[in-house]
Amino acid sequence: MTSSSQKPSLAIGVVGHGFMGKAHALAWRVVDQVFSLPVHPELAVIAGRDKVRARVAATELGFREATDDWRHLVARDDIDVVDICTPVSLHAAIAEAALAAGKHVLCEKPLAMNRAEATALALAASEARRRGKLAMVGYNYRRVPALQLARRFCLDGRIGELRHARARYLQDWLSDADAPWSWRLDVAEAGAGALADLGSHLIDLVHHITGRRLVEVHGSVQTFVDARPAAPGSDNAGNKHVRVTVDDACAFIGRSGDGLLATFEVTRCAIGRKNQLLLELDGTKGSIAFNLERLNELQLYDGSGPSDARGFRTIVVTEPAHPYLSGWWPPGHTLGWDDTFVHQARDFVLAASDGQPCAPDFTDGLYVQAVIEAIQTSAAEGGWQRIDEPARAQERTRHGRDSRRVRSVEAGR
Amino acid sequence: MTSSSQKPSLAIGVVGHGFMGKAHALAWRVVDQVFSLPVHPELAVIAGRDKVRARVAATELGFREATDDWRHLVARDDIDVVDICTPVSLHAAIAEAALAAGKHVLCEKPLAMNRAEATALALAASEARRRGKLAMVGYNYRRVPALQLARRFCLDGRIGELRHARARYLQDWLSDADAPWSWRLDVAEAGAGALADLGSHLIDLVHHITGRRLVEVHGSVQTFVDARPAAPGSDNAGNKHVRVTVDDACAFIGRSGDGLLATFEVTRCAIGRKNQLLLELDGTKGSIAFNLERLNELQLYDGSGPSDARGFRTIVVTEPAHPYLSGWWPPGHTLGWDDTFVHQARDFVLAASDGQPCAPDFTDGLYVQAVIEAIQTSAAEGGWQRIDEPARAQERTRHGRDSRRVRSVEAGR
Amino acid sequence: MTSSSQKPSLAIGVVGHGFMGKAHALAWRVVDQVFSLPVHPELAVIAGRDKVRARVAATELGFREATDDWRHLVARDDIDVVDICTPVSLHAAIAEAALAAGKHVLCEKPLAMNRAEATALALAASEARRRGKLAMVGYNYRRVPALQLARRFCLDGRIGELRHARARYLQDWLSDADAPWSWRLDVAEAGAGALADLGSHLIDLVHHITGRRLVEVHGSVQTFVDARPAAPGSDNAGNKHVRVTVDDACAFIGRSGDGLLATFEVTRCAIGRKNQLLLELDGTKGSIAFNLERLNELQLYDGSGPSDARGFRTIVVTEPAHPYLSGWWPPGHTLGWDDTFVHQARDFVLAASDGQPCAPDFTDGLYVQAVIEAIQTSAAEGGWQRIDEPARAQERTRHGRDSRRVRSVEAGR
Amino acid sequence: MTSSSQKPSLAIGVVGHGFMGKAHALAWRVVDQVFSLPVHPELAVIAGRDKVRARVAATELGFREATDDWRHLVARDDIDVVDICTPVSLHAAIAEAALAAGKHVLCEKPLAMNRAEATALALAASEARRRGKLAMVGYNYRRVPALQLARRFCLDGRIGELRHARARYLQDWLSDADAPWSWRLDVAEAGAGALADLGSHLIDLVHHITGRRLVEVHGSVQTFVDARPAAPGSDNAGNKHVRVTVDDACAFIGRSGDGLLATFEVTRCAIGRKNQLLLELDGTKGSIAFNLERLNELQLYDGSGPSDARGFRTIVVTEPAHPYLSGWWPPGHTLGWDDTFVHQARDFVLAASDGQPCAPDFTDGLYVQAVIEAIQTSAAEGGWQRIDEPARAQERTRHGRDSRRVRSVEAGR
Repeated sequence: MTSSSQKPSLAIGVVGHGFMGKAHALAWRVVDQVFSLPVHPELAVIAGRDKVRARVAATELGFREATDDWRHLVARDDIDVVDICTPVSLHAAIAEAALAAGKHVLCEKPLAMNRAEATALALAASEARRRGKLAMVGYNYRRVPALQLARRFCLDGRIGELRHARARYLQDWLSDADAPWSWRLDVAEAGAGALADLGSHLIDLVHHITGRRLVEVHGSVQTFVDARPAAPGSDNAGNKHVRVTVDDACAFIGRSGDGLLATFEVTRCAIGRKNQLLLELDGTKGSIAFNLERLNELQLYDGSGPSDARGFRTIVVTEPAHPYLSGWWPPGHTLGWDDTFVHQARDFVLAASDGQPCAPDFTDGLYVQAVIEAIQTSAAEGGWQRIDEPARAQERTRHGRDSRRVRSVEAGR
Repeated sequence: MTSSSQKPSLAIGVVGHGFMGKAHALAWRVVDQVFSLPVHPELAVIAGRDKVRARVAATELGFREATDDWRHLVARDDIDVVDICTPVSLHAAIAEAALAAGKHVLCEKPLAMNRAEATALALAASEARRRGKLAMVGYNYRRVPALQLARRFCLDGRIGELRHARARYLQDWLSDADAPWSWRLDVAEAGAGALADLGSHLIDLVHHITGRRLVEVHGSVQTFVDARPAAPGSDNAGNKHVRVTVDDACAFIGRSGDGLLATFEVTRCAIGRKNQLLLELDGTKGSIAFNLERLNELQLYDGSGPSDARGFRTIVVTEPAHPYLSGWWPPGHTLGWDDTFVHQARDFVLAASDGQPCAPDFTDGLYVQAVIEAIQTSAAEGGWQRIDEPARAQERTRHGRDSRRVRSVEAGR
Repeated sequence: MTSSSQKPSLAIGVVGHGFMGKAHALAWRVVDQVFSLPVHPELAVIAGRDKVRARVAATELGFREATDDWRHLVARDDIDVVDICTPVSLHAAIAEAALAAGKHVLCEKPLAMNRAEATALALAASEARRRGKLAMVGYNYRRVPALQLARRFCLDGRIGELRHARARYLQDWLSDADAPWSWRLDVAEAGAGALADLGSHLIDLVHHITGRRLVEVHGSVQTFVDARPAAPGSDNAGNKHVRVTVDDACAFIGRSGDGLLATFEVTRCAIGRKNQLLLELDGTKGSIAFNLERLNELQLYDGSGPSDARGFRTIVVTEPAHPYLSGWWPPGHTLGWDDTFVHQARDFVLAASDGQPCAPDFTDGLYVQAVIEAIQTSAAEGGWQRIDEPARAQERTRHGRDSRRVRSVEAGR
Repeated sequence: MTSSSQKPSLAIGVVGHGFMGKAHALAWRVVDQVFSLPVHPELAVIAGRDKVRARVAATELGFREATDDWRHLVARDDIDVVDICTPVSLHAAIAEAALAAGKHVLCEKPLAMNRAEATALALAASEARRRGKLAMVGYNYRRVPALQLARRFCLDGRIGELRHARARYLQDWLSDADAPWSWRLDVAEAGAGALADLGSHLIDLVHHITGRRLVEVHGSVQTFVDARPAAPGSDNAGNKHVRVTVDDACAFIGRSGDGLLATFEVTRCAIGRKNQLLLELDGTKGSIAFNLERLNELQLYDGSGPSDARGFRTIVVTEPAHPYLSGWWPPGHTLGWDDTFVHQARDFVLAASDGQPCAPDFTDGLYVQAVIEAIQTSAAEGGWQRIDEPARAQERTRHGRDSRRVRSVEAGR
């Protein structure tokens, strides 16, 4: 007997086939097998700057077609979703074109080069929304089951009123002063360094998990190594060293309007820390702690119960009762980093198929951009910087969102 | 431009679509995207006992066709690989038929119901080998990068001569006396309980990683709950309780001929331990420790160097220098439990495409079966039991294997 | 104003001034400052084999007097407590003499060279008990607050009915084949090796914490290094190597009469494990785990409550509600290994001052000896060995003890 | 034979018999037993505000005499050392009087209420130094063996040039809004809250371990609970609530002049964190991490060696090669929090007996005070605050100190 799926399909066009392009492609490929979705995503077209490399990527990653012109991909009628996995400097142009062309858009983080770009994108997304089109930012760590569980505990009042948030994201790939230059170190392509790449995740996560926004920040940025050797084979390979025009590290302190004291640190120079995203939340009744290097675990301290039996418990987040886990394996069979993209793809496909919104939307992306810009101003000029307007804009959005179905929280229920 | 892969393909037929069937299917589906193999595996046919459920599984898991008769699948000319994911009681019949039909065979663990069955299978595999056909047992934990790294350290002499192996595999899904009965608790389908299901992994891993076999064992089995409620909707659902005819837990001590003292414990009743496979190896120069619940980490103690700076180090096994990692993500981006099946599929496809052998073969599977049977005898009759003949048979095999390319070790180099 | 304590004092005579002698001396010295006892222990006399070294020890450790003859110490009227910190071979003679002389006795573990000696001592202690004299064995790990808390959880039914005990004690001071010979490697002085030294602690702890005794055991001993260089300056220093006549390592499996499966492993050759005593107890409702290298922590898994929030919690055992902690510091201010001797001294002094018994008594010590002897028999002859008679003798004792005040449990309440 | 120590003695007078008084008293009592010092400290006099309570304390803690007037204690000819364990507001008066009276002084941390007081004290100490008298601040965490080892690794160049310091000290005793008021919450007695109590330790440790001082800081303080119930039995017990006039929490960022980015956070409201002092140092070659709740462990990442075997190693800091450990137990036998005071007492006695200086001196204490004041200014006024003058004063001192014997580093060698 022949198996024939009668499901409608959703044609995916991915722009970019680097690290993120591959992660997204694998996710689109398996998501329907894992979760049995109502709509089947198809790997339709992949775009890259170079014709030959795009074709190789298409073969390796399983796309039907390749192109060296993202405008061509965006313009095609047979593409439903434009998935943007390029350097940050291209996000705005591609996303605006794709929204204008009536596509659903998934854009890698951070959304834009700066707040102005993000503001324009949020407006475009808001219009597209009226036409039933999604615009989502790829803050994939929202889809770590343990972090989604952290959000559940926060919003359920499990840890009481929040007092402290402690967030840091440490990597070490730039520890070595001879690590080669890349586009991520060029302010013109990346917008900023660790602050934009890693800090954006933290800002988004604290917002998402706690439901609170920062209203003022103070920060400091630092570049430990000013210039780096050009990568072998790169355009700059003739130059001995290329200037680094972004931050290697950034520390900042933020305050919400209602008593939360939040500390942040990001760096690409913490030798030994491969991908350590730590998040701790201390409330009046309990605390939560998370480490991305052990992404299947969530620490919870419950301040109630007998005083001789309290302690941080390590929840192995692989139970059917945990977010996203119903599609996977029996308890104790762990997930990997890239499965967050499978969850992201699932939520995106479900939203696309039923016309519901899906967070983080471009307004959420704009909020992150506003905070980044405030930190940059503080680092340059000193003192606290307020994050006024986006906060006001957001406020309205947030109230609106509270009443709608939030996909990701329900995921694992 | 259209992407068209010119790769030859390898048609996969999977028998069984439960937990293991799904894990294998996902692996076959993405392995070529991750590793860019010379041969492209295709999800051809899936077989199940029930026609309707097999068809649903085919749709969900992405197979072209479904069948309710594994004999039909095995008999087809257009199937290259028979992948056996059924209860243990069916392994021997399917594997023998598939080998006889000239297929490559991947068989889930443990290989067989007992040593006699395994002996016959090892013989059949040995004949198939001469015709260039693979027969591999699905001890997927050999493909955990951290455990492959442990093997590298062992075989490189990094920890010196081995004195202690300490292995345990603890789960808790039978802790609750009301957890429902399943085929895994029926000696006629599963052969044994925790000993076969979990113990087989430990026996295989100690053998694989250390290169040593046990020559005598002593053990004890225990069943904490004698009968369990029939699963809702099962054939037995009329009965109030169904008898448990296998062990819930087993502890055993083993000795190699050359000074290794090895301790083992497996259970399905260690409440709170979701999937804790611990392995510790202590040598004269260093020690290794591993925990499957944190499968991206390997602990290493190096007894050399300044005495004020020694300690167990936690290696985050996600570097390009680590086994299997070259196909994946940058350092610190972790893998999940199911990625071990992707690695298994990779090694299988590579071996199938170049005609090389691939461990663990059916002789390795027979060794595990012989140890299990010795433990069962010891538990029933008391005292030490020797594991004579398979050891001798193995000896020859092992020497033979030493000179051949061992796929898995080279994986990440 | 002058401070003058009106407390009665308790004169302590310690036999032996090695590692254990120093640990006991410090404990006797500070216990009254920590806990404000009704009776003040005084460091009266210390005995050693050599006159000069005993005098130096007295000065360093703060004793009023020194002697090179333990018989002299035992015979003195002004000594209330004889505290035995000698090699095992001397325990019986000193303890019997001290009990006969009407002293309270604290004897280091293991109690005796073998079961016969221990039986005689238990009888002598039982007679002394009638005259109001204490005889206690120095199983100091009973006084680790975290382990006392583990006992509380066990006896309160917090983890339900016990199924698994998993105990191991790993050290590495004999990993190096050139580590020098000492009396601890001489069967004539030590009775046995790792089995007696480390195994005795585990046997006692499982008994103490769970309230259950093993009724049969099976085990295996191993000596990795047969002969070792004589220690520089020792009597044997002329010999190039001295024979090791005890075990380096031992593994055994035990069963209680009522369904507990217990596994044990001890070694002095697990390189990197400095003093790792692990104890895990799995019941029907919860589990406990402990590691002596982190002695201020106890792990507890509580199987009740919402299924999305279960996990092993790390209790930092430094709260007022925890055993023994009321005398110490605010929460989070940790204790050290040697503080277990302070707790032991506290319980001993309190019992001596109010005439109550104090566990572990010599019958508890006899039980441990009986298990050790059964393991040795099993290791020599193979198969399970029953531990019959001491268990019966104990049964009576245990019922008797149940009704009396158990000092250590109340300690921290 | 009678033991009679011919050692000279050092008469200790302790002012204050609360938490710190007890910790110091126990340390003075056992230090000579642990380390066999050339001079024997004697518990001579203890002073408290109340006559009766001082007498009770003398009895419990083993002092010869008690007084309710610290001026009396300071004035006595038979007191060699004045050890100040009072609320911060009394430090300056007692220390100045004691130095003027020619005593050695050990003063609890923080040294003073503010920078002005500390400046005067540093001057007085400097004069006393010329007369051979010690003035040391009780930053006891310098004497944690693991932190002393961290300093060794830093100063030996083991981790290369420093880029990041990450320090935090979290407690939770004020998490509960109903936790009672105490003098520590009164700015007039304590000077500041978590910033002074906990932050001072972090500022001192980063300075001590890295050898670097902060030259500018930016910070934020927060008080989560404005008023608290008076403690039962206190002077304020009539009032329903007493105002809290200090900070509950503080976060700050600091920069050294030479490229170090340091982040700090302290709080008494991080529920579940009992006494978590974390310190992480990332250099160009390696990293270090420490957690006071596991004070016997130090984490070290060594960036050299084969890339497949790098990781943070957990050094169990109990080897003879480790600082302070030679006086204690065999490897793996852990120390407790209070043993840091024994080490402090040891270093103090050795310095007193040979006339050498002993860090942290009052100039070190002044540096901490200057940083605290800069943070307070920043918190009140915003922006970065420089720590100018003390840094200059220190600079001279530091160069002077580099050539002298630094006691604590040599401790464990």
